[in-house]
Amino acid sequence: METVKAYGASSATSDLEMMHIDRRDLTGNDVQIDILYCGVCHSDIHTARSEWGPASYPVVPGHEIVGKVIATGPGVTAFKEGDLVGVGCMVDSCRECSACREGLEQYCENGAVMTYGGKDKHLGGHTFGGYSQNIVVDEAFVVRVPENLDIARVAPLLCAGITTWSPLRHWNVKKGDKVGVIGLGGLGHMGIKLAHALGAYVVMITRSMDKAEDAKALGADEVLLSTDEKAMQKHANSFDFLMNTIPVGHDLNPYISLMKRDTTMAIVGAIEPLKSVHGGMLVSKRKNIAGSMIGGIEETQEMLDFCGEHNILPDVEMIDIQNINEAWERVVRADVKYRFVIDMKSLQ
Amino acid sequence: METVKAYGASSATSDLEMMHIDRRDLTGNDVQIDILYCGVCHSDIHTARSEWGPASYPVVPGHEIVGKVIATGPGVTAFKEGDLVGVGCMVDSCRECSACREGLEQYCENGAVMTYGGKDKHLGGHTFGGYSQNIVVDEAFVVRVPENLDIARVAPLLCAGITTWSPLRHWNVKKGDKVGVIGLGGLGHMGIKLAHALGAYVVMITRSMDKAEDAKALGADEVLLSTDEKAMQKHANSFDFLMNTIPVGHDLNPYISLMKRDTTMAIVGAIEPLKSVHGGMLVSKRKNIAGSMIGGIEETQEMLDFCGEHNILPDVEMIDIQNINEAWERVVRADVKYRFVIDMKSLQ
Repeated sequence: METVKAYGASSATSDLEMMHIDRRDLTGNDVQIDILYCGVCHSDIHTARSEWGPASYPVVPGHEIVGKVIATGPGVTAFKEGDLVGVGCMVDSCRECSACREGLEQYCENGAVMTYGGKDKHLGGHTFGGYSQNIVVDEAFVVRVPENLDIARVAPLLCAGITTWSPLRHWNVKKGDKVGVIGLGGLGHMGIKLAHALGAYVVMITRSMDKAEDAKALGADEVLLSTDEKAMQKHANSFDFLMNTIPVGHDLNPYISLMKRDTTMAIVGAIEPLKSVHGGMLVSKRKNIAGSMIGGIEETQEMLDFCGEHNILPDVEMIDIQNINEAWERVVRADVKYRFVIDMKSLQ
Repeated sequence: METVKAYGASSATSDLEMMHIDRRDLTGNDVQIDILYCGVCHSDIHTARSEWGPASYPVVPGHEIVGKVIATGPGVTAFKEGDLVGVGCMVDSCRECSACREGLEQYCENGAVMTYGGKDKHLGGHTFGGYSQNIVVDEAFVVRVPENLDIARVAPLLCAGITTWSPLRHWNVKKGDKVGVIGLGGLGHMGIKLAHALGAYVVMITRSMDKAEDAKALGADEVLLSTDEKAMQKHANSFDFLMNTIPVGHDLNPYISLMKRDTTMAIVGAIEPLKSVHGGMLVSKRKNIAGSMIGGIEETQEMLDFCGEHNILPDVEMIDIQNINEAWERVVRADVKYRFVIDMKSLQ
């Protein structure tokens, strides 16, 4: 067992502060990763503040982890010291249920072990995330980071990237499809980049005109103001796929009206009640509303390899860990383009 | 042009009464059908009472029509005098859009012509339905009724039958699947019969225990009381498909909890706001909520042929047309097992 430095919250109302946590000794298939960068996800804040139900404290957040392998257990075959790797939202799962066998560990029937706040089978208690010096993870939940990518910007791919990639792939978005990305935050900006790289005609759907220029720079072919009734009508029944990244409950009906027959709107943002859905709008053109959660490990590797090939990276703002509380306040105000990444050297 | 007897409503608040309507002369592809039986669908009432928006009066309802061909236009190839045929909710569509070309006339991009209250291209005004002596319909919208079926009971297949068949087929329900049918009315009782005949393990999901025995007689393998929290929990995440026939807005969340990962709940009843849908429940297991509306003509023929092979028929209560107003009141009170059929001889 090794004691390492971390930043965490000791209660729902406390700021993050420096603390010490334990990392387990390496078991057969474990790799130990020196954390170089960690992305800041809104989930970190929701969890630490017990906004998604009571958290176990201390909470050490962080599930967009990029680092270098510094040690490997004797059974490790896929990685060696010095490898550039990533860890996302999960560090383990049952590996036996139908979901795990299909490579969909995020839907593990017995509950995947989340990177922070999950049940720690090794040390007891709960897991601690990436706002820390290093982490020990079973190699089955470690992915390889393509060497050609700018490593300082890779981290958000491990959550924002895979969360938007997985639905694009599951619902088979392809060249020429008209894809709408609703909401321009951490998820939305990755959705635009990935859908664009897949060859889709990407429409950024937003309520705020001042996001239009940004959206185009990110790869959107068009911007649709959801408050402009005429424009919304012009786009009615025309989309092959909608990705809804709005992080809070909202009225889905205006977006449902945009969908072609037999298409899907995938909810990837909101995990709360979605107010009203009009049954008739679904019925009249056999439309689907679905949810999608992060992605499996194999799919995460696929996404990273795709990003390597196409040189796709999130737009990030680098911070030191000492500025994390201020950064969180800015995340809450949606004042970031589009993801904070913590340079973990600052914790040394 | 021929003037025939019919029953219709002359205003949103009037009872149905005998009236005379015009039927067009046969064009090339038309068949004239002597109506023998017509089913009573709740939509008839909603439309006649302007509950789904202002109707054009008089409204002559009826879109579950069974009869005999008595005349054919010179271009008719599929039918001849004496054939036993059916007409459902549509009598025409554009036949050129992508939906029509795929045999999904119900989703016609230019709007299918509904059997009653649709725009009549031939005589002007609006179409009149099956509460009448006869009807003239393009052969492309006429289906063949298997001769072995008890003809007095066939009519409800043309709406209740196809509305439940189409989603079962579209979402590929197969032998051994666990299918939940939510709500036991005209649609629900056909859903049970058809899902059972497809080899599914059928669970009737209802709030009322007194429907349990009936549901089993109809082919349900099990009854699940949605008010029984323990039973609902026992069935959590276990269904391969849900067909939701509840005709009014309601809370979908208890039903979403019953679905397996990557499965669909098809709404076939409610065409109004569905209150709240919990985004997190969709996200956590990539669940889908979809709508489905009646079915295409080819699919309707497929369903009738399947019912012929398996001798599947709705449970009906026969009435004379003179009792229609009383029957409607009973439909509104859900006091019918499970569909009224009008013996149209009573209109002669």
